[in-house]
Amino acid sequence: MQTAEVIYKRRSIRKYKPGVPVTDEQVKKLLSAAMAAPTARNMQEWEFLVLRDRKNLDKLLAAHPYAGMVKEAPCVIIVCGNTNKDTVGYWPGDCSAAMQNILLMATDMGLGSVWLGVYPREERVEAIKKAFGLPAHITPLGVAVIGTAGEEKAPEDRYDAAKVHSEKW
Amino acid sequence: MQTAEVIYKRRSIRKYKPGVPVTDEQVKKLLSAAMAAPTARNMQEWEFLVLRDRKNLDKLLAAHPYAGMVKEAPCVIIVCGNTNKDTVGYWPGDCSAAMQNILLMATDMGLGSVWLGVYPREERVEAIKKAFGLPAHITPLGVAVIGTAGEEKAPEDRYDAAKVHSEKW
Repeated sequence: MQTAEVIYKRRSIRKYKPGVPVTDEQVKKLLSAAMAAPTARNMQEWEFLVLRDRKNLDKLLAAHPYAGMVKEAPCVIIVCGNTNKDTVGYWPGDCSAAMQNILLMATDMGLGSVWLGVYPREERVEAIKKAFGLPAHITPLGVAVIGTAGEEKAPEDRYDAAKVHSEKW
Repeated sequence: MQTAEVIYKRRSIRKYKPGVPVTDEQVKKLLSAAMAAPTARNMQEWEFLVLRDRKNLDKLLAAHPYAGMVKEAPCVIIVCGNTNKDTVGYWPGDCSAAMQNILLMATDMGLGSVWLGVYPREERVEAIKKAFGLPAHITPLGVAVIGTAGEEKAPEDRYDAAKVHSEKW
């Protein structure tokens, strides 16, 4: 699909059709897109935890308060920052650009997606780190839920001229 | 252009052709794309400062240590977070997704772009706030430099299997 179409077509999908798996090839396309995002000083300080086993998806369900759609959705990608590689604090921004690429690529592939916020909510960070045994220097930024959409949402243009400041505040 | 092409074609462009303006219509397309990015709880806690006047571009040049390409580039968009709207701390991530949409839309439109990091480097945040009189609750996340590319960079696939963890760390 055209980029200008996909950017508006991407919507937060919270209902999924069960039983339609996300394939290895699809996961690789999503993660290649993620790693094509820019990072400060080209640090590439991201790491990705992919879950498709039902028992692991259920663990996530228990670790995140708004992950209810993971009962049906077949795949999540937890986007994490490696704080050993980034001592400045650019990693949440860089990982969010990677997350956005995942969501756009999913939309382009005809898949539904939603970004569940984790960082900086300490209780969500700790619950996910504990559930999946993440090392101390790995912090989950957010969760991309991926699957076949079980709801339709129309593309949305949210342009708001009040948020645009030209030359001065 | 196709989304899957644009995601890889987007590269950090640090040389620009002087004298080719970015039009009002182009700026609006870039900002509409920015505001199509998701935000936590749909807060839309972003604000955008667009600079095209040479005297303001020169102010930015003085306020950011790596903005040398702004001597030639005709347009910058400073992506900011409104911390009155977001008390959790999701704004750097949300504004980074908006930034990524700007970079991708610029690429789609045949324009070059680069993301200059600002937040959380306090000295850059303060210099930009002071230069442009930003209110206390508005924090600059980063600067999107936009213009006609003066250098060519090939699309790059940075997929790294070592950063992918399947089911467990």
